[in-house]
Amino acid sequence: MDRDKKISTAVIRRLPKYYRYLKELLRNGIYKTSSKELSQMTGFSASQIRQDLNNFGGFGQQGFGYDVYNLSNEIGKIIGADKNYKIIIVGAGNMGQAIANYTGFYENGYEVIAIFDKNPKIIGVSIRNVTIQDVDEIESFLSKNFVDIGVICTPKSASQATADLLAKCGIKGIWNFAPADIRVPDDVAIENVHLNESLFSLTYYYNKNKIKADL
Amino acid sequence: MDRDKKISTAVIRRLPKYYRYLKELLRNGIYKTSSKELSQMTGFSASQIRQDLNNFGGFGQQGFGYDVYNLSNEIGKIIGADKNYKIIIVGAGNMGQAIANYTGFYENGYEVIAIFDKNPKIIGVSIRNVTIQDVDEIESFLSKNFVDIGVICTPKSASQATADLLAKCGIKGIWNFAPADIRVPDDVAIENVHLNESLFSLTYYYNKNKIKADL
Repeated sequence: MDRDKKISTAVIRRLPKYYRYLKELLRNGIYKTSSKELSQMTGFSASQIRQDLNNFGGFGQQGFGYDVYNLSNEIGKIIGADKNYKIIIVGAGNMGQAIANYTGFYENGYEVIAIFDKNPKIIGVSIRNVTIQDVDEIESFLSKNFVDIGVICTPKSASQATADLLAKCGIKGIWNFAPADIRVPDDVAIENVHLNESLFSLTYYYNKNKIKADL
Repeated sequence: MDRDKKISTAVIRRLPKYYRYLKELLRNGIYKTSSKELSQMTGFSASQIRQDLNNFGGFGQQGFGYDVYNLSNEIGKIIGADKNYKIIIVGAGNMGQAIANYTGFYENGYEVIAIFDKNPKIIGVSIRNVTIQDVDEIESFLSKNFVDIGVICTPKSASQATADLLAKCGIKGIWNFAPADIRVPDDVAIENVHLNESLFSLTYYYNKNKIKADL
């Protein structure tokens, strides 16, 4: 794979889905697949799939299809699923606790090594053997521990300042659940998860269907 | 607005973001804005914004800009933010509990009216005054109560069957947090939230930056 090749964000966003389905095929003992089969599974068109996967060199062979094991390995490498990540969570409200408790992350190589909150009532409480620390300890903790990703689950009002602090302390990946679009330096990767926006997208289609049904 | 006009999914996905920023402007007492200003806030280009908002009739006027109040109202109507929704949650594990506890939804007109789980240890427990019921009660509950949206927070293995049941019982909107792509009838709106995929997208950019930094 040409690592400098510019790949569109849309393609990148589809890769984890390919990865998930390929892993599922492997679990089911299936080692060959085709763009047609992948299309049925993912809902993307077969030509879209061929185009997407061509971005990373020709894993598919005419009349033979895709080697599921190699393809999932390659995609796994591209999206970084072949590595382990140390994670901290800032904000241990409901969302922070859900993230801390979500076992799916552990299975995928993500390890929560610290959780921070400013609420004295929950500082000292443990979630899956990780004790919640005072947010004032973040800087000191990060000076002693290498962390890949900081998860921001603070209220909106504290989210940008938290991101600034994490970036200042050398964290290069931020996963943001606060309902704000956080700005980070160019060398920091950011992914915003806006649940309200996801819900509005749902209600848009929900209402559209309802109007159709009422006609 | 021409309600039959075909608007692309990409535009629909940007609307909640415009809505969020416009509401923020209103809260700050700002009643006029421009595509340039909106561009600075949202990170979308000014021409993209003009194009997006033109989809819904010309809310903007040359040399005058956008009326924040009217624009946010119009977008709110389009995405259905002007209505209230009755919600049930199926699966009261960490994610289900996080959703049930997330106050942001209540502020936006979403009301959780029932929560279901199959774990006898938590059936009977209340979250924000809503008592967790046995999943076996779903059908009976839905025969007596109108529900707009079903949130699926079950394990993956139960997610499709849950969606099938909800659709059979007349629910027309499904918000899915299980790591599976759920299939629903055409008249049911579905929104899949795949946190693992969001995290992989983050690690892709994280690793890409790291490779760059190492060069």
